[in-house]
Amino acid sequence: MKCRVCRGSAVIDLPRHNANFCSAHFQQLCLRQVEKVIKDFDMMSTSDRILVAVSGGKDSLALWDILCELGYPADGLYVGLGIGEYSDSSLLYAREFATRINRSLHVVSLRSEFDFDVPTAARVTGRVPCSACGMSKRHVFDRTALDKDYNVLATGHNLDDEVAVLFGNTLRWDIDYMARQMPVLEARQGLPKKVKPLVRLSEREMAAWCVLRGIEYIVEECPLASGNRHIAYKEAMNLIEERSPGTKAAFYLSFLDRMAPLLKDHREDEIASLSHCTRCGSPTSSHDSMCAFCRLQERSRVSEPVSVDILTKKGRRK
Amino acid sequence: MKCRVCRGSAVIDLPRHNANFCSAHFQQLCLRQVEKVIKDFDMMSTSDRILVAVSGGKDSLALWDILCELGYPADGLYVGLGIGEYSDSSLLYAREFATRINRSLHVVSLRSEFDFDVPTAARVTGRVPCSACGMSKRHVFDRTALDKDYNVLATGHNLDDEVAVLFGNTLRWDIDYMARQMPVLEARQGLPKKVKPLVRLSEREMAAWCVLRGIEYIVEECPLASGNRHIAYKEAMNLIEERSPGTKAAFYLSFLDRMAPLLKDHREDEIASLSHCTRCGSPTSSHDSMCAFCRLQERSRVSEPVSVDILTKKGRRK
Repeated sequence: MKCRVCRGSAVIDLPRHNANFCSAHFQQLCLRQVEKVIKDFDMMSTSDRILVAVSGGKDSLALWDILCELGYPADGLYVGLGIGEYSDSSLLYAREFATRINRSLHVVSLRSEFDFDVPTAARVTGRVPCSACGMSKRHVFDRTALDKDYNVLATGHNLDDEVAVLFGNTLRWDIDYMARQMPVLEARQGLPKKVKPLVRLSEREMAAWCVLRGIEYIVEECPLASGNRHIAYKEAMNLIEERSPGTKAAFYLSFLDRMAPLLKDHREDEIASLSHCTRCGSPTSSHDSMCAFCRLQERSRVSEPVSVDILTKKGRRK
Repeated sequence: MKCRVCRGSAVIDLPRHNANFCSAHFQQLCLRQVEKVIKDFDMMSTSDRILVAVSGGKDSLALWDILCELGYPADGLYVGLGIGEYSDSSLLYAREFATRINRSLHVVSLRSEFDFDVPTAARVTGRVPCSACGMSKRHVFDRTALDKDYNVLATGHNLDDEVAVLFGNTLRWDIDYMARQMPVLEARQGLPKKVKPLVRLSEREMAAWCVLRGIEYIVEECPLASGNRHIAYKEAMNLIEERSPGTKAAFYLSFLDRMAPLLKDHREDEIASLSHCTRCGSPTSSHDSMCAFCRLQERSRVSEPVSVDILTKKGRRK
């Protein structure tokens, strides 16, 4: 297996590019793909104040690393979700990497700053934990970026993530969600600009990036995510990708190219209809006076904290 | 396993309806689903001259049967594709069923009327046989309907077919194809009205219909269709359907409901841009003077006929 560029010994095969790469040229490819996305979607410049949402997993640490490599001076934000040992150890990975690259890592804990955590919120709402988790993270990301004067918020969504979400939204033809699924959302009414610079790189490529760069990350999946529908969507798409490499990238990139323009009016209607939360002041599409995060917080803070085990299979079996 | 309606002994479970049915009530359900589609999309009335495209397979024979049961007086059209024994035996099933319901079956053979067949066309074009086959069938369906004064052409596309095609088009975001993928296409410029009354019923339901009604049909898949991408799309969708029954129906029906209206302008632009084939007079979207069917016929008729074996795996291994 030889590197397409230098004919040296390759360390990774990328069927979608129909090529193999050595460590150095694989890293060069990743950097170029991210640079291309940043340029194509006018995501950021080196003079921006950039905040990376860091979970301690491969994607967010790789993103932070790549942005710094490309000369974008980004700090990190870790949100403590209170998911037992999983949260404890993911914070350690995030801190370790921040020290290594000598950048600031902001840490916000849901439990200490908002009086609840994800397991409790999931229990109280009776919905899947991923729903309360995603919504809480978005809220804390937005608030922290604005409070600390960052104008760009970058998240580590990779190609597989975007493909699975797009596929899920497409299965229901949820036009509102589809309209919002862009690699960049401009700053608006108290929300920072949000960017996803990894959308041209796959999950496997980000794992390889971390291994080749010697970045330690939390390998375990979140214990609350099992049974998540996106996992089934990923499996289905992987089945097709295996037979026709490149299908996933084509699905996502041609969506941006051909479909997203047709949804432009939808996006603008949605922005125009935002109001402000009466409790925290954040923009909200909710018809109630409070935003979804504040409602979740109100319901969850009065409950006893629950342990992760209660929500995982291990807990349910007891 | 008990019938949801009469509590009698059930013969089929339908996970997407979360219910089981006896033979009589399953048939009633199928008839109602078809009637609903016909009404919702204003497909036809009992005074129309209806032609059913009949392949000898379960879907087209079930469609013909159901339309007659519902009081729509439909005749059949069988197109001989020249796919060896497969074509010979599928014609027998079609004839047998026509005799049983005492309706006319028109038979058009590509070889005797147009001097070529599907295996030869596939060989000449170097593309997958399904592409030459689909295009030839559409052409012969349209011409025969008009020549014989039928104003509605009905095809046996079931829910699984439509889902697989929609999924394929969506994976590439092929907006032109997506815009056309409607259960009814109105008559226009020398094309009959085209309807797909089975879009609310699955492949498995159509097989069950035939078994319960004692309809003999060709069970084998077309020997030239193996490796067809739609088969991979069907497998991927089946994986998701198994975990979340009803996903396929929701994907297709919510497409019609929410997405198709956004593509309306696209459809109308396409109709406005049709011209006429200089050779056969059929409407064509081709920029050349001849329609795709005439071009295929011109290229294929001068070639020696090829045998099916050459195109199947069996043939390729020789």
